[in-house]
Amino acid sequence: MAHEENGYFTEENSVEVVTSRNAGARSERLKQVMEVVTRKLHEAVKELEPTQEEWMETVQFLTRTGHMCNEWRQEFILLSDVLGVSMLVDAINNRKPSGASESTVLGPFHVADAPELPMGANICLDQKGEDMVIGGLILDTEGRPIKDAVIDVWQANDEGFYDVQQKGIQPDFNLRGIFRTGKDGRYWFRAVKPKYYPIPDDGPVGQMLKALGRHPYRPAHLHYIIKADGFETLTTHIFDPDDPYIHSDAVFGVKESLLAKFELTDDPARARELGFDGKYWKVAHDFVLAPIKS
Amino acid sequence: MAHEENGYFTEENSVEVVTSRNAGARSERLKQVMEVVTRKLHEAVKELEPTQEEWMETVQFLTRTGHMCNEWRQEFILLSDVLGVSMLVDAINNRKPSGASESTVLGPFHVADAPELPMGANICLDQKGEDMVIGGLILDTEGRPIKDAVIDVWQANDEGFYDVQQKGIQPDFNLRGIFRTGKDGRYWFRAVKPKYYPIPDDGPVGQMLKALGRHPYRPAHLHYIIKADGFETLTTHIFDPDDPYIHSDAVFGVKESLLAKFELTDDPARARELGFDGKYWKVAHDFVLAPIKS
Ligand SMILES: [Fe+2]
Ligand SMILES: [Fe+2]
Repeated sequence: MAHEENGYFTEENSVEVVTSRNAGARSERLKQVMEVVTRKLHEAVKELEPTQEEWMETVQFLTRTGHMCNEWRQEFILLSDVLGVSMLVDAINNRKPSGASESTVLGPFHVADAPELPMGANICLDQKGEDMVIGGLILDTEGRPIKDAVIDVWQANDEGFYDVQQKGIQPDFNLRGIFRTGKDGRYWFRAVKPKYYPIPDDGPVGQMLKALGRHPYRPAHLHYIIKADGFETLTTHIFDPDDPYIHSDAVFGVKESLLAKFELTDDPARARELGFDGKYWKVAHDFVLAPIKS
Repeated sequence: MAHEENGYFTEENSVEVVTSRNAGARSERLKQVMEVVTRKLHEAVKELEPTQEEWMETVQFLTRTGHMCNEWRQEFILLSDVLGVSMLVDAINNRKPSGASESTVLGPFHVADAPELPMGANICLDQKGEDMVIGGLILDTEGRPIKDAVIDVWQANDEGFYDVQQKGIQPDFNLRGIFRTGKDGRYWFRAVKPKYYPIPDDGPVGQMLKALGRHPYRPAHLHYIIKADGFETLTTHIFDPDDPYIHSDAVFGVKESLLAKFELTDDPARARELGFDGKYWKVAHDFVLAPIKS
């Protein structure tokens, strides 16, 4: 009783005492966020009963994570990624109607100003890697082709690096391009087979993964952002289902529906048409865009 | 079913997918910590359904908090403090047997090498502030006085600053001292009435408090660490119950049992004996130490 009257903090009433201070918060949403964050934090502390040393280790881990962040490196996003929080936020914000393609994380390697290319162009500018041709349809949920869909694609090279990670080594805009569909809704382009790559693991998050016995790799994938008038923008990947890390993506980005078919193809005549030399990979994947919610 | 077989991430199974990766963690405790942290984080995200923008604001808040930390400033500890987490960890680690004095947060202003002083010494070295004499008994849970108890005290001056915050303005070790009890278990010393003070509020945590409509003040208090052979070390404060912030300590450190009696005393003869000039504050507070758990 006394506690309720004077409002002093106890183990039992800890959440109520802390959150009751926020009555004058700038917005109802902020008040709600602080209520949930405080409640879940206190629940975690009560369940774990950390020692003072464990609490201090946590403070120091967060501090090191903050100190690792700079203009080019966002260690808290990595932390969110490897804890599945980024994917969860993505999932919650991109619940799709039945039949529409699923989204996944954007990742840190998108650039805004990739070149628009004619359909069929080869986005590999340095002739390194295994040739690949990739294509499919952009459809609405009724199965009708979408005209003027804009498809922004980017991928790592066959050593697992994006152009922006190897400036001066890879040509600018290597393995990036923007394509626009005609009335058949079809897209296709040439590229090289992507490879798995590690998320940056030389910081506190990498140390945490090591302590957890986890590897830092993302299975091979291509990134897509697909935009079309009247449709929800789709930010997603397609994955190589035979990648060794397909069941253990360090950031949990894989979904069943994002597995594409990668077919090693031995068709010298077609290879010659494509400007390829010998066998090449054929990848087919269609995307279905959700209509804008009204 | 498919999800359970292939282990891909979904909104529904997000916690299990993430925590199942930690099977090879360095220790069972680390595995447990990650399980609880992941589960509570995902619960919070599922309850709040943050937008991508809110998620990014959170990332940026944590980044600013990390960047604020340096050798002298620990913004993540402040964050823990204002969310009640520090007090909760303190409470969990210092559950006392019935009758023993309660603990509270250590705070950032303790120094290791304060001078040991004779009982009754005046720890105020610059004659600024309202005179105060303070004393009481150090007892065991049977009510017996404890001999050779070592009492480490420190406090802010009557402008709300610790000596270490005003190097060159306050004398070194101003308002700090270490005392040792005789066989009567009694302690007493002279000081000045402490004043409320703000926690450092020029960083992200201060901005958060402002957005929440919260002030940054701690009510006036004296810090104690009391050690004695055979007893649990007690880290605590005593508070001025008439302080304007007594019911709204920014870090939730106040407990009912830590309220002391501050009595303004008009006793010219006794004042003269104490070396005081006019009225002075008389404060009485006993402490009861818990026996070491066997
Ligand atoms: Fe990627
Ligand atoms: Fe203090």
